[in-house]
Amino acid sequence: MLGNDYPDQDCTLARALEVVGERWTLLILRDAFYGVRRFSDFAVHLDIPRAVLSDRLRGLVEDGLLERHPDPAHAGREVYELTATGRDLWPALHALTRWGDRFHDAPRTVRRYLHAACDARLDERGVCPVCGAVPPPDQVSTVAGRPPGRDDAVSAALRSRIHLLEPLMAHPR
Amino acid sequence: MLGNDYPDQDCTLARALEVVGERWTLLILRDAFYGVRRFSDFAVHLDIPRAVLSDRLRGLVEDGLLERHPDPAHAGREVYELTATGRDLWPALHALTRWGDRFHDAPRTVRRYLHAACDARLDERGVCPVCGAVPPPDQVSTVAGRPPGRDDAVSAALRSRIHLLEPLMAHPR
Repeated sequence: MLGNDYPDQDCTLARALEVVGERWTLLILRDAFYGVRRFSDFAVHLDIPRAVLSDRLRGLVEDGLLERHPDPAHAGREVYELTATGRDLWPALHALTRWGDRFHDAPRTVRRYLHAACDARLDERGVCPVCGAVPPPDQVSTVAGRPPGRDDAVSAALRSRIHLLEPLMAHPR
Repeated sequence: MLGNDYPDQDCTLARALEVVGERWTLLILRDAFYGVRRFSDFAVHLDIPRAVLSDRLRGLVEDGLLERHPDPAHAGREVYELTATGRDLWPALHALTRWGDRFHDAPRTVRRYLHAACDARLDERGVCPVCGAVPPPDQVSTVAGRPPGRDDAVSAALRSRIHLLEPLMAHPR
């Protein structure tokens, strides 16, 4: 569709969308912020066809948003982790999520994002209302609103309060 | 792909992407923030097939992000304007644009967004570094970095400093 022929050469939004402007891509990155790291965990949590997931993960590694590392728990397997470039997407992902909260008008049921040190919910700009800091994602916790309807292992782990970027499935499986 | 079967019921990001998670959709909304209001201006600036544009505009009106009004300059024609819900996307669009700036490492050539009252460039969170305010889009100006390579009327108008949300093409054509 857009190819490499950007409609407005000075618009980096168009070029950002070349990298992350596909729905699965942003959901994969969201899961990476949650701490999902294994192919099989992305696959089961997102209900995404494995070929599509494989393609999107490869693209995110090529574009430098994710890095592949050996899985410490499984010889021969790999895990995916956000790079600094990928982590830089946090403000955009958080802002889009908050817009979705308002658009769907579900203030009491939505997942909340907290400054872990202050235990306070971030405002729409990602600012902690207690200390005024704008915590990077590794200082953010998240708690589910309403329990998700799904019962895969990732969804189950996400029912507890978790710290962003920490491996979600710490135990070897 | 995602359909209405959201992978995680408590995730409003997934549901936000149902509404705006398509590249053209976010570029159409960006143009609406620039003040583009006429079908023909969106079409020429985005180089988007007219059937696709028509479909995306209809979806954005149905979802309540844009409103259709009679064109004051052309009897029988219409213009599209952002609703309050659409304007609420400003923080997410700005954050994603800024990520694109960093990703493509073009700090001197990118379009800049300024708090109009202070004439200062907004930081990555959309905060004015002079007064500390987080200006809504109707208090934001934008200036091109490098002149865009395109020479359609919208691109030409965007070479000047403009105020977001003000009609970009004030003269009847």
